[in-house]
Amino acid sequence: MEKPYVIGIDMGGTNTVFGIVDARGTVVAKSAIKTSAHPEDINLYIEDIATGLDKLINEVGGKERIKGIGVGAPNGNYYTGNIEFAPNLPWKGVIPFAKLLSDKMNIPTALTNDANAAAVGEMTYGAARGMKNFIMITLGTGVGSGIVINGDVVYGHDGFAGELGHTISVRQNGRICGCGRTGCLEAYASATGVARTAREILESTDKQSLLRNLPAESITSKDVYDAAVQGDEVAKEIFEFTGRLLGEKFADFIAFSAPEAIIMFGGLTKAGDLLMEPVKRHMEENVLSIWKNKVKVLFSELKEADAAVLGASALAWEL
Amino acid sequence: MEKPYVIGIDMGGTNTVFGIVDARGTVVAKSAIKTSAHPEDINLYIEDIATGLDKLINEVGGKERIKGIGVGAPNGNYYTGNIEFAPNLPWKGVIPFAKLLSDKMNIPTALTNDANAAAVGEMTYGAARGMKNFIMITLGTGVGSGIVINGDVVYGHDGFAGELGHTISVRQNGRICGCGRTGCLEAYASATGVARTAREILESTDKQSLLRNLPAESITSKDVYDAAVQGDEVAKEIFEFTGRLLGEKFADFIAFSAPEAIIMFGGLTKAGDLLMEPVKRHMEENVLSIWKNKVKVLFSELKEADAAVLGASALAWEL
Repeated sequence: MEKPYVIGIDMGGTNTVFGIVDARGTVVAKSAIKTSAHPEDINLYIEDIATGLDKLINEVGGKERIKGIGVGAPNGNYYTGNIEFAPNLPWKGVIPFAKLLSDKMNIPTALTNDANAAAVGEMTYGAARGMKNFIMITLGTGVGSGIVINGDVVYGHDGFAGELGHTISVRQNGRICGCGRTGCLEAYASATGVARTAREILESTDKQSLLRNLPAESITSKDVYDAAVQGDEVAKEIFEFTGRLLGEKFADFIAFSAPEAIIMFGGLTKAGDLLMEPVKRHMEENVLSIWKNKVKVLFSELKEADAAVLGASALAWEL
Repeated sequence: MEKPYVIGIDMGGTNTVFGIVDARGTVVAKSAIKTSAHPEDINLYIEDIATGLDKLINEVGGKERIKGIGVGAPNGNYYTGNIEFAPNLPWKGVIPFAKLLSDKMNIPTALTNDANAAAVGEMTYGAARGMKNFIMITLGTGVGSGIVINGDVVYGHDGFAGELGHTISVRQNGRICGCGRTGCLEAYASATGVARTAREILESTDKQSLLRNLPAESITSKDVYDAAVQGDEVAKEIFEFTGRLLGEKFADFIAFSAPEAIIMFGGLTKAGDLLMEPVKRHMEENVLSIWKNKVKVLFSELKEADAAVLGASALAWEL
């Protein structure tokens, strides 16, 4: 019998969102639960997901119509199906999540981290349709990446490849990153990195700025965007700085895998041209001449509210 | 009929070396010609190769025993079989070398650049046997790289992936590189880069050193090695500096493709532990914690005199 649907599960630190998706990337049914309602027992969390999924599955005609389940999870390892030492989840150590869920649901289940899932989603339904070689960069609270070569996500020797947010962007006096090292791209080009840049410029200069009307500690990347749209020079300088670091690193990433495109995804991309223009300019200024004006820089084409579920679901078509 | 041999051709700016290789990586016959004897006509160069090859082929029992020809060439593009705008060859523009040679010889021919050929050679006959994910770094006049993921060399969208020598190692006041940009790894970690480091330290300090007995302009990486072996502090400082830049970049490369090993090849590796020790130390200091003490750093196991021919020949087993 035909199996026209897949299930995507996006596991975040706060909420777990799941949906049923068709081959064109339409989310036909969707629901969510709290991730940390049962910090003491992962099996109760699995029960919650199963209850929610069963309801959605009935709406689309039963389990026979579901090809598989894809999960995007923090520190998810595609090879093992395990979640390994995820700092923002309540269950510690190594969790055999894909196995637990597929045993419970009797549906084949694949799992990877959220940035890799986003790459597969973009290739299946979004801006990377038809591309065999591209790099997905997710610009959210952190900076993640999913690298696709010859149509396959790069998982590497151990399943954890593609941590481009933790390549070093600023070698001298670099900012401390959440990973404990200094100078990582993530400490600059994430939403939190943009807010840190704002505070640094406001503290170290006396330039006039709309951002000075806000308590420094509460400034967000959204505030920087709002100020830039109103022509604020400091806010524009912040995007120029962020775009420069991203563009310089993109030039290095191209030297690695010679992708057709680099695709940016996540909250920071709402800045649109304020981000895109300096990223492209600095990438072109820094890239080796054989790749000048050859590599596209694009924004994700997935609707943000559905993107994580779509990305996770796309994994299941390959099961 | 059984075809137990492949042919490897290593095209350098000065000499073109070719050999017949068996499945265990033994070079059973070998010869060489001048690369630039016929700068006016590539077809005369092809004639020279054909004459040389025919002689070797007769020695091993005729064309029926040859599975294919592999060529390692500057700016060689695996996808097209073309040599494209190679600065150190006498023929300009785009040369359809694989087609010209296979038409002439009536033997299937594959072509790639020398660093990619070295990676395939190492996987077939050397330190990377059995590995599916590793990075080859060639440390010669320049710094080249061949990246293997899931058992395949990464060629990227256009055939030119893997230019890790042209990722930026020193962002502020970086040295001018042969590619016209500044701060490339190649400007530091190549044999010529090591010699530049020597001259910089000798000029900018008054530290005592055996290297001061040589005319500054003539100092080579070999001289630095010889001085280091004798305990010269400046020479040791040069290897420490070179090893630091390489180790820092290796940490970034690991974040990309999570390889099982990084394998160093080329003239600079003769320095042995003088290079290996600081490379490993700085790599471990800089790598993301999930990869600490997990990624091997190795030297090539191919005999240097045969390595380029072996690497090129290995391509032909896949034909």
